[in-house]
Amino acid sequence: MANPTAAMIVIGDEILSGRTRDSNLHYLAKQLALVGIDLQESRIVLDVSNDIIDATNALRSRYTYVFTSGGIGPTHDDITADSIAAAFEVSIDVRADARAILATNYKDPDKELTQARLRMARIPDGATLIDNPVSRAPGFSVENVHVMAGVPAVFEAMLDGLLPKLGAGKRVLSHTVHTNMKEGDIANPLGAIARENPDVSIGSYPYYKDGTFGCNLVVRSTEQNRLDEVAAQIEAAIQKLGE
Amino acid sequence: MANPTAAMIVIGDEILSGRTRDSNLHYLAKQLALVGIDLQESRIVLDVSNDIIDATNALRSRYTYVFTSGGIGPTHDDITADSIAAAFEVSIDVRADARAILATNYKDPDKELTQARLRMARIPDGATLIDNPVSRAPGFSVENVHVMAGVPAVFEAMLDGLLPKLGAGKRVLSHTVHTNMKEGDIANPLGAIARENPDVSIGSYPYYKDGTFGCNLVVRSTEQNRLDEVAAQIEAAIQKLGE
Repeated sequence: MANPTAAMIVIGDEILSGRTRDSNLHYLAKQLALVGIDLQESRIVLDVSNDIIDATNALRSRYTYVFTSGGIGPTHDDITADSIAAAFEVSIDVRADARAILATNYKDPDKELTQARLRMARIPDGATLIDNPVSRAPGFSVENVHVMAGVPAVFEAMLDGLLPKLGAGKRVLSHTVHTNMKEGDIANPLGAIARENPDVSIGSYPYYKDGTFGCNLVVRSTEQNRLDEVAAQIEAAIQKLGE
Repeated sequence: MANPTAAMIVIGDEILSGRTRDSNLHYLAKQLALVGIDLQESRIVLDVSNDIIDATNALRSRYTYVFTSGGIGPTHDDITADSIAAAFEVSIDVRADARAILATNYKDPDKELTQARLRMARIPDGATLIDNPVSRAPGFSVENVHVMAGVPAVFEAMLDGLLPKLGAGKRVLSHTVHTNMKEGDIANPLGAIARENPDVSIGSYPYYKDGTFGCNLVVRSTEQNRLDEVAAQIEAAIQKLGE
Protein backbone atom coordinates (compact mmCIF):
# COMPACT_ATOMS: atom_id res chain seq x y z
CA MET A 1 0.00 0.00 0.00
CA ALA A 2 1.24 3.46 -0.80
CA ASN A 3 2.36 5.70 2.04
CA PRO A 4 0.11 8.56 3.22
CA THR A 5 0.95 11.91 1.63
CA ALA A 6 1.40 15.37 3.10
CA ALA A 7 1.84 19.03 2.27
CA MET A 8 3.05 21.92 4.37
CA ILE A 9 1.97 25.56 4.46
CA VAL A 10 4.53 27.93 5.98
CA ILE A 11 2.68 31.09 6.99
CA GLY A 12 4.67 34.24 7.49
CA ASP A 13 6.06 37.35 5.90
CA GLU A 14 9.41 36.82 7.60
CA ILE A 15 10.44 33.92 5.35
CA LEU A 16 9.47 35.70 2.13
CA SER A 17 11.04 39.00 3.19
CA GLY A 18 14.40 37.25 3.62
CA ARG A 19 14.54 38.06 7.32
CA THR A 20 14.39 34.43 8.44
CA ARG A 21 15.53 31.21 6.85
CA ASP A 22 12.84 28.58 7.29
CA SER A 23 13.70 25.62 9.47
CA ASN A 24 10.25 24.16 10.18
CA LEU A 25 9.80 22.73 6.70
CA HIS A 26 13.17 21.02 6.92
CA TYR A 27 12.36 19.59 10.36
CA LEU A 28 8.96 18.36 9.20
CA ALA A 29 10.44 16.78 6.06
CA LYS A 30 12.97 14.83 8.10
CA GLN A 31 10.42 13.65 10.68
CA LEU A 32 7.85 12.59 8.05
CA ALA A 33 10.47 10.59 6.15
CA LEU A 34 11.21 8.64 9.33
CA VAL A 35 7.60 7.55 9.77
CA GLY A 36 6.76 6.94 6.12
CA ILE A 37 4.58 9.94 5.32
CA ASP A 38 5.50 11.34 1.89
CA LEU A 39 5.82 15.14 1.91
CA GLN A 40 4.90 16.09 -1.66
CA GLU A 41 4.40 19.85 -1.72
CA SER A 42 4.94 22.98 0.31
CA ARG A 43 3.66 26.51 -0.03
CA ILE A 44 5.00 29.57 1.71
CA VAL A 45 2.45 32.36 1.95
CA LEU A 46 2.18 35.84 3.40
CA ASP A 47 0.11 36.70 6.47
CA VAL A 48 -2.85 37.34 4.15
CA SER A 49 -6.12 35.62 4.95
CA ASN A 50 -7.20 34.79 1.39
CA ASP A 51 -3.79 33.30 0.60
CA ILE A 52 -3.95 31.05 3.67
CA ILE A 53 -7.52 30.00 2.86
CA ASP A 54 -6.72 29.23 -0.78
CA ALA A 55 -3.61 27.22 0.06
CA THR A 56 -5.43 25.28 2.79
CA ASN A 57 -8.33 24.34 0.53
CA ALA A 58 -6.09 23.47 -2.41
CA LEU A 59 -3.93 21.14 -0.34
CA ARG A 60 -6.31 19.54 2.15
CA SER A 61 -8.31 17.86 -0.59
CA ARG A 62 -5.19 16.61 -2.33
CA TYR A 63 -3.06 15.16 0.46
CA THR A 64 -3.64 12.88 3.44
CA TYR A 65 -2.28 15.50 5.84
CA VAL A 66 -1.61 19.23 5.75
CA PHE A 67 0.70 20.79 8.34
CA THR A 68 0.94 24.54 8.89
CA SER A 69 3.42 26.65 10.84
CA GLY A 70 3.09 30.22 11.97
CA GLY A 71 0.53 32.88 12.76
CA ILE A 72 -1.14 31.56 15.91
CA GLY A 73 0.21 34.09 18.43
CA PRO A 74 -1.51 37.04 20.12
CA THR A 75 -0.57 39.89 17.76
CA HIS A 76 -2.50 41.60 14.97
CA ASP A 77 -0.59 39.70 12.26
CA ASP A 78 -1.58 36.29 13.71
CA ILE A 79 -4.52 35.41 11.49
CA THR A 80 -3.99 31.70 10.92
CA ALA A 81 -6.72 30.35 13.25
CA ASP A 82 -9.40 32.61 11.79
CA SER A 83 -8.24 31.80 8.24
CA ILE A 84 -8.40 28.04 8.88
CA ALA A 85 -11.91 28.41 10.30
CA ALA A 86 -12.86 30.35 7.17
CA ALA A 87 -11.34 27.67 4.93
CA PHE A 88 -13.53 25.02 6.61
CA GLU A 89 -16.49 27.41 6.85
CA VAL A 90 -16.83 26.79 10.59
CA SER A 91 -17.22 29.32 13.39
CA ILE A 92 -14.37 30.26 15.73
CA ASP A 93 -14.35 31.58 19.28
CA VAL A 94 -12.42 31.45 22.55
CA ARG A 95 -12.79 27.89 23.79
CA ALA A 96 -12.91 27.00 27.49
CA ASP A 97 -10.34 24.18 27.37
CA ALA A 98 -7.84 26.28 25.42
CA ARG A 99 -8.44 29.20 27.79
CA ALA A 100 -7.82 26.94 30.79
CA ILE A 101 -4.52 25.76 29.31
CA LEU A 102 -3.40 29.35 28.65
CA ALA A 103 -4.40 30.35 32.18
CA THR A 104 -1.80 27.99 33.68
CA ASN A 105 0.84 30.40 32.40
CA TYR A 106 -0.27 33.24 34.70
CA LYS A 107 -0.46 33.92 38.43
CA ASP A 108 -3.51 36.12 37.95
CA PRO A 109 -5.22 34.88 34.78
CA ASP A 110 -8.23 37.15 35.14
CA LYS A 111 -5.91 40.13 34.84
CA GLU A 112 -3.09 38.75 32.71
CA LEU A 113 -5.18 36.87 30.17
CA THR A 114 -5.68 40.01 28.15
CA GLN A 115 -7.90 40.22 25.12
CA ALA A 116 -4.78 39.89 22.97
CA ARG A 117 -3.64 36.71 24.73
CA LEU A 118 -7.15 35.27 24.49
CA ARG A 119 -6.68 35.33 20.72
CA MET A 120 -4.50 32.25 21.34
CA ALA A 121 -7.54 30.43 22.76
CA ARG A 122 -9.62 31.05 19.62
CA ILE A 123 -10.18 27.56 18.22
CA PRO A 124 -12.25 26.65 15.16
CA ASP A 125 -15.42 24.73 15.92
CA GLY A 126 -14.81 20.97 16.01
CA ALA A 127 -11.03 21.18 16.25
CA THR A 128 -8.83 18.98 18.45
CA LEU A 129 -6.09 20.73 20.44
CA ILE A 130 -2.39 20.05 19.84
CA ASP A 131 -0.30 20.09 23.01
CA ASN A 132 2.37 22.76 23.41
CA PRO A 133 4.79 21.64 26.14
CA VAL A 134 7.04 24.68 25.60
CA SER A 135 4.77 27.69 26.06
CA ARG A 136 1.27 26.22 26.61
CA ALA A 137 -0.73 28.07 23.88
CA PRO A 138 -2.09 25.09 21.91
CA GLY A 139 -2.13 24.30 18.22
CA PHE A 140 -5.12 22.49 16.77
CA SER A 141 -6.25 20.03 14.14
CA VAL A 142 -9.31 20.50 11.95
CA GLU A 143 -9.96 17.26 10.06
CA ASN A 144 -6.65 16.58 8.25
CA VAL A 145 -5.15 20.06 8.75
CA HIS A 146 -2.72 20.40 11.66
CA VAL A 147 -2.02 23.97 12.74
CA MET A 148 1.17 24.64 14.68
CA ALA A 149 3.31 27.52 15.89
CA GLY A 150 6.06 29.23 13.90
CA VAL A 151 8.69 29.46 16.62
CA PRO A 152 10.88 26.44 15.79
CA ALA A 153 11.21 25.12 19.37
CA VAL A 154 7.42 25.17 19.71
CA PHE A 155 6.71 23.80 16.23
CA GLU A 156 9.07 20.91 16.83
CA ALA A 157 7.59 20.07 20.24
CA MET A 158 4.05 20.19 18.86
CA LEU A 159 4.95 17.96 15.92
CA ASP A 160 6.77 15.47 18.13
CA GLY A 161 3.60 15.06 20.18
CA LEU A 162 1.26 14.94 17.19
CA LEU A 163 3.07 12.59 14.81
CA PRO A 164 2.68 9.35 16.82
CA LYS A 165 -1.10 9.89 16.74
CA LEU A 166 -1.27 10.03 12.95
CA GLY A 167 -1.51 7.04 10.67
CA ALA A 168 1.92 6.53 9.17
CA GLY A 169 3.43 4.39 6.44
CA LYS A 170 6.57 2.47 5.76
CA ARG A 171 9.74 4.37 6.48
CA VAL A 172 11.49 5.43 3.29
CA LEU A 173 15.03 4.12 3.30
CA SER A 174 17.77 5.79 1.32
CA HIS A 175 21.23 4.91 0.12
CA THR A 176 23.58 7.55 -1.24
CA VAL A 177 26.23 6.69 -3.82
CA HIS A 178 28.80 9.44 -4.08
CA THR A 179 30.88 10.00 -7.18
CA ASN A 180 33.44 12.56 -8.28
CA MET A 181 32.17 12.10 -11.82
CA LYS A 182 30.10 14.88 -13.27
CA GLU A 183 26.38 14.29 -13.70
CA GLY A 184 26.80 14.30 -17.46
CA ASP A 185 29.16 11.32 -17.33
CA ILE A 186 26.81 9.13 -15.36
CA ALA A 187 23.49 10.40 -16.78
CA ASN A 188 23.02 7.77 -19.51
CA PRO A 189 23.49 4.58 -17.45
CA LEU A 190 21.68 6.22 -14.53
CA GLY A 191 18.68 7.00 -16.72
CA ALA A 192 18.61 3.41 -17.94
CA ILE A 193 18.70 2.09 -14.35
CA ALA A 194 15.88 4.49 -13.41
CA ARG A 195 13.74 3.29 -16.32
CA GLU A 196 14.34 -0.37 -15.44
CA ASN A 197 13.44 0.18 -11.76
CA PRO A 198 10.36 2.38 -11.70
CA ASP A 199 9.43 1.20 -8.18
CA VAL A 200 12.53 2.89 -6.77
CA SER A 201 13.23 6.65 -6.71
CA ILE A 202 16.65 7.73 -7.96
CA GLY A 203 17.74 11.34 -7.60
CA SER A 204 20.94 12.92 -8.84
CA TYR A 205 22.11 15.84 -6.72
CA PRO A 206 25.10 17.67 -8.12
CA TYR A 207 27.16 19.90 -5.91
CA TYR A 208 29.90 22.44 -6.35
CA LYS A 209 32.54 22.60 -3.64
CA ASP A 210 36.05 24.03 -3.55
CA GLY A 211 35.93 24.61 -7.30
CA THR A 212 34.99 21.09 -8.35
CA PHE A 213 31.74 19.38 -9.20
CA GLY A 214 30.59 15.98 -8.09
CA CYS A 215 27.27 14.36 -7.39
CA ASN A 216 25.36 12.30 -4.91
CA LEU A 217 23.07 9.67 -6.37
CA VAL A 218 20.33 8.96 -3.87
CA VAL A 219 18.23 5.81 -4.11
CA ARG A 220 15.01 5.77 -2.07
CA SER A 221 12.65 2.90 -1.40
CA THR A 222 10.62 1.41 1.42
CA GLU A 223 12.11 -2.02 0.56
CA GLN A 224 15.65 -2.70 1.78
CA ASN A 225 16.31 -5.44 -0.79
CA ARG A 226 15.27 -3.22 -3.71
CA LEU A 227 17.39 -0.40 -2.30
CA ASP A 228 20.42 -2.69 -2.13
CA GLU A 229 19.85 -4.08 -5.63
CA VAL A 230 19.53 -0.71 -7.33
CA ALA A 231 22.40 0.86 -5.36
CA ALA A 232 24.59 -2.07 -6.49
CA GLN A 233 23.59 -1.47 -10.12
CA ILE A 234 24.57 2.21 -9.83
CA GLU A 235 27.88 1.38 -8.18
CA ALA A 236 28.64 -1.14 -10.92
CA ALA A 237 27.80 1.44 -13.61
CA ILE A 238 30.15 3.99 -12.04
CA GLN A 239 32.94 1.43 -11.76
CA LYS A 240 32.48 0.47 -15.42
CA LEU A 241 32.64 4.12 -16.51
CA GLY A 242 35.82 4.63 -14.50
CA GLU A 243 37.63 1.76 -16.17
CA MET B 1 3.67 53.07 -7.38
CA ALA B 2 3.61 49.62 -5.86
CA ASN B 3 6.69 47.45 -6.20
CA PRO B 4 6.76 44.57 -8.69
CA THR B 5 5.81 41.20 -7.16
CA ALA B 6 7.40 37.79 -7.40
CA ALA B 7 6.96 34.12 -6.59
CA MET B 8 9.45 31.28 -6.45
CA ILE B 9 9.11 27.62 -7.39
CA VAL B 10 11.68 25.33 -5.80
CA ILE B 11 11.79 22.14 -7.85
CA GLY B 12 13.23 19.05 -6.30
CA ASP B 13 12.53 15.95 -4.28
CA GLU B 14 15.60 16.58 -2.13
CA ILE B 15 14.02 19.47 -0.19
CA LEU B 16 10.76 17.61 0.46
CA SER B 17 12.51 14.36 1.41
CA GLY B 18 14.41 16.20 4.14
CA ARG B 19 17.77 15.44 2.56
CA THR B 20 18.61 19.08 1.85
CA ARG B 21 17.64 22.31 3.56
CA ASP B 22 16.73 24.90 0.94
CA SER B 23 18.99 27.89 0.66
CA ASN B 24 17.98 29.28 -2.75
CA LEU B 25 14.66 30.66 -1.54
CA HIS B 26 16.38 32.45 1.31
CA TYR B 27 19.02 33.89 -1.03
CA LEU B 28 16.38 35.03 -3.52
CA ALA B 29 14.26 36.60 -0.76
CA LYS B 30 17.21 38.65 0.50
CA GLN B 31 18.26 39.80 -2.98
CA LEU B 32 14.73 40.76 -4.03
CA ALA B 33 14.22 42.80 -0.86
CA LEU B 34 17.35 44.81 -1.73
CA VAL B 35 16.02 45.81 -5.14
CA GLY B 36 12.39 46.37 -4.18
CA ILE B 37 10.73 43.30 -5.70
CA ASP B 38 8.15 41.87 -3.27
CA LEU B 39 8.39 38.09 -2.93
CA GLN B 40 4.83 37.07 -2.07
CA GLU B 41 4.65 33.30 -2.44
CA SER B 42 6.75 30.21 -2.86
CA ARG B 43 5.92 26.65 -3.79
CA ILE B 44 8.17 23.64 -3.38
CA VAL B 45 7.23 20.80 -5.71
CA LEU B 46 8.48 17.33 -6.58
CA ASP B 47 10.24 16.47 -9.84
CA VAL B 48 6.84 15.74 -11.37
CA SER B 49 5.97 17.39 -14.65
CA ASN B 50 2.31 18.15 -13.94
CA ASP B 51 3.16 19.69 -10.58
CA ILE B 52 5.76 21.98 -12.19
CA ILE B 53 3.35 22.95 -14.98
CA ASP B 54 0.48 23.69 -12.59
CA ALA B 55 2.64 25.78 -10.25
CA THR B 56 4.15 27.71 -13.16
CA ASN B 57 0.79 28.56 -14.68
CA ALA B 58 -0.80 29.45 -11.34
CA LEU B 59 2.00 31.84 -10.42
CA ARG B 60 3.06 33.43 -13.72
CA SER B 61 -0.34 35.03 -14.23
CA ARG B 62 -0.46 36.33 -10.68
CA TYR B 63 2.99 37.85 -10.12
CA THR B 64 5.29 40.15 -12.05
CA TYR B 65 8.12 37.60 -11.93
CA VAL B 66 8.44 33.89 -11.25
CA PHE B 67 11.84 32.41 -10.37
CA THR B 68 12.51 28.68 -10.37
CA SER B 69 15.44 26.66 -9.05
CA GLY B 70 16.38 23.09 -9.84
CA GLY B 71 15.93 20.38 -12.42
CA ILE B 72 17.92 21.73 -15.39
CA GLY B 73 20.82 19.25 -15.34
CA PRO B 74 21.60 16.29 -17.60
CA THR B 75 20.01 13.43 -15.64
CA HIS B 76 16.67 11.63 -16.02
CA ASP B 77 15.12 13.54 -13.10
CA ASP B 78 15.86 16.94 -14.69
CA ILE B 79 12.52 17.74 -16.26
CA THR B 80 12.16 21.45 -15.59
CA ALA B 81 12.93 22.77 -19.10
CA ASP B 82 10.43 20.41 -20.76
CA SER B 83 7.83 21.21 -18.10
CA ILE B 84 8.23 24.97 -18.58
CA ALA B 85 7.85 24.54 -22.35
CA ALA B 86 4.68 22.54 -21.71
CA ALA B 87 3.35 25.23 -19.35
CA PHE B 88 3.75 27.84 -22.11
CA GLU B 89 2.64 25.38 -24.81
CA VAL B 90 5.79 26.05 -26.87
CA SER B 91 8.15 23.54 -28.46
CA ILE B 92 11.56 22.71 -27.04
CA ASP B 93 14.73 21.43 -28.65
CA VAL B 94 18.52 21.66 -28.45
CA ARG B 95 19.36 25.22 -29.41
CA ALA B 96 22.56 26.15 -31.25
CA ASP B 97 23.58 29.02 -28.98
CA ALA B 98 23.09 26.96 -25.83
CA ARG B 99 24.96 24.06 -27.41
CA ALA B 100 27.86 26.36 -28.30
CA ILE B 101 28.06 27.60 -24.71
CA LEU B 102 28.09 24.03 -23.36
CA ALA B 103 30.76 23.05 -25.88
CA THR B 104 33.23 25.51 -24.33
CA ASN B 105 33.39 23.13 -21.34
CA TYR B 106 34.98 20.31 -23.35
CA LYS B 107 38.21 19.68 -25.24
CA ASP B 108 36.42 17.39 -27.69
CA PRO B 109 32.79 18.55 -27.73
CA ASP B 110 31.78 16.21 -30.55
CA LYS B 111 32.65 13.29 -28.30
CA GLU B 112 32.04 14.71 -24.85
CA LEU B 113 28.76 16.50 -25.55
CA THR B 114 26.81 13.33 -24.99
CA GLN B 115 23.10 13.03 -25.55
CA ALA B 116 22.63 13.39 -21.79
CA ARG B 117 24.66 16.61 -21.63
CA LEU B 118 22.80 17.99 -24.64
CA ARG B 119 19.66 17.90 -22.48
CA MET B 120 21.16 21.01 -20.89
CA ALA B 121 20.95 22.79 -24.27
CA ARG B 122 17.24 22.08 -24.62
CA ILE B 123 15.65 25.53 -24.51
CA PRO B 124 11.94 26.34 -24.93
CA ASP B 125 11.10 28.22 -28.12
CA GLY B 126 11.39 31.99 -27.69
CA ALA B 127 13.37 31.86 -24.43
CA THR B 128 16.29 34.14 -23.54
CA LEU B 129 19.37 32.48 -22.03
CA ILE B 130 20.55 33.24 -18.48
CA ASP B 131 24.32 33.29 -18.11
CA ASN B 132 25.99 30.68 -15.90
CA PRO B 133 29.49 31.90 -15.04
CA VAL B 134 30.14 28.90 -12.76
CA SER B 135 29.55 25.85 -14.95
CA ARG B 136 28.38 27.23 -18.31
CA ALA B 137 25.08 25.32 -18.79
CA PRO B 138 22.64 28.23 -19.12
CA GLY B 139 19.34 28.97 -17.45
CA PHE B 140 16.62 30.69 -19.45
CA SER B 141 13.71 33.10 -19.25
CA VAL B 142 10.34 32.54 -20.94
CA GLU B 143 8.30 35.72 -20.66
CA ASN B 144 8.22 36.46 -16.90
CA VAL B 145 9.45 33.02 -15.76
CA HIS B 146 13.16 32.76 -14.96
CA VAL B 147 14.53 29.22 -14.80
CA MET B 148 17.75 28.65 -12.87
CA ALA B 149 19.88 25.84 -11.49
CA GLY B 150 19.43 24.18 -8.12
CA VAL B 151 23.09 24.04 -7.05
CA PRO B 152 23.29 27.09 -4.77
CA ALA B 153 26.57 28.47 -6.16
CA VAL B 154 25.12 28.33 -9.68
CA PHE B 155 21.68 29.64 -8.70
CA GLU B 156 23.25 32.59 -6.93
CA ALA B 157 25.55 33.44 -9.84
CA MET B 158 22.69 33.22 -12.33
CA LEU B 159 20.47 35.43 -10.19
CA ASP B 160 23.22 37.99 -9.64
CA GLY B 161 23.53 38.36 -13.43
CA LEU B 162 19.81 38.38 -14.09
CA LEU B 163 18.50 40.75 -11.42
CA PRO B 164 20.01 44.00 -12.75
CA LYS B 165 18.19 43.37 -16.04
CA LEU B 166 14.76 43.17 -14.43
CA GLY B 167 12.56 46.14 -13.64
CA ALA B 168 12.84 46.71 -9.91
CA GLY B 169 11.07 48.84 -7.33
CA LYS B 170 11.88 50.82 -4.25
CA ARG B 171 14.04 49.01 -1.75
CA VAL B 172 12.07 47.93 1.29
CA LEU B 173 13.69 49.33 4.41
CA SER B 174 13.25 47.68 7.78
CA HIS B 175 13.77 48.63 11.39
CA THR B 176 13.72 46.03 14.15
CA VAL B 177 12.63 46.92 17.66
CA HIS B 178 13.67 44.22 20.12
CA THR B 179 11.89 43.66 23.40
CA ASN B 180 12.16 41.14 26.22
CA MET B 181 8.43 41.53 26.72
CA LYS B 182 6.25 38.67 25.60
CA GLU B 183 4.14 39.18 22.52
CA GLY B 184 0.98 39.14 24.65
CA ASP B 185 2.14 42.18 26.62
CA ILE B 186 2.75 44.34 23.59
CA ALA B 187 -0.02 42.98 21.35
CA ASN B 188 -2.71 45.56 22.16
CA PRO B 189 -0.76 48.79 21.57
CA LEU B 190 1.04 47.14 18.63
CA GLY B 191 -2.27 46.27 16.99
CA ALA B 192 -3.47 49.86 17.45
CA ILE B 193 -0.28 51.21 15.85
CA ALA B 194 -0.69 48.77 12.95
CA ARG B 195 -4.29 49.88 12.38
CA GLU B 196 -3.30 53.55 12.47
CA ASN B 197 -0.46 53.05 9.97
CA PRO B 198 -1.79 50.76 7.23
CA ASP B 199 0.86 51.97 4.76
CA VAL B 200 3.59 50.37 6.88
CA SER B 201 4.06 46.63 7.51
CA ILE B 202 4.55 45.62 11.14
CA GLY B 203 5.46 42.04 11.98
CA SER B 204 5.88 40.51 15.41
CA TYR B 205 8.36 37.64 15.51
CA PRO B 206 8.55 35.85 18.83
CA TYR B 207 11.52 33.69 19.65
CA TYR B 208 12.47 31.22 22.32
CA LYS B 209 16.11 31.16 23.37
CA ASP B 210 17.84 29.83 26.46
CA GLY B 211 14.50 29.19 28.11
CA THR B 212 13.03 32.67 27.71
CA PHE B 213 10.72 34.27 25.21
CA GLY B 214 11.09 37.67 23.62
CA CYS B 215 10.12 39.22 20.36
CA ASN B 216 11.39 41.26 17.48
CA LEU B 217 8.98 43.83 16.11
CA VAL B 218 9.90 44.52 12.51
CA VAL B 219 8.66 47.61 10.72
CA ARG B 220 8.97 47.61 6.92
CA SER B 221 8.39 50.43 4.48
CA THR B 222 9.91 51.92 1.34
CA GLU B 223 9.77 55.37 3.01
CA GLN B 224 12.48 56.16 5.57
CA ASN B 225 10.44 58.87 7.30
CA ARG B 226 7.44 56.58 7.79
CA LEU B 227 9.74 53.83 9.05
CA ASP B 228 11.23 56.20 11.61
CA GLU B 229 7.84 57.52 12.72
CA VAL B 230 6.27 54.11 13.27
CA ALA B 231 9.38 52.63 14.92
CA ALA B 232 9.33 55.59 17.34
CA GLN B 233 5.68 54.93 18.15
CA ILE B 234 6.47 51.28 18.94
CA GLU B 235 9.45 52.21 21.10
CA ALA B 236 7.31 54.72 23.00
CA ALA B 237 4.60 52.09 23.55
CA ILE B 238 7.15 49.60 24.93
CA GLN B 239 8.61 52.24 27.23
CA LYS B 240 5.18 53.15 28.51
CA LEU B 241 4.33 49.49 29.23
CA GLY B 242 7.59 49.08 31.10
CA GLU B 243 6.91 51.97 33.45
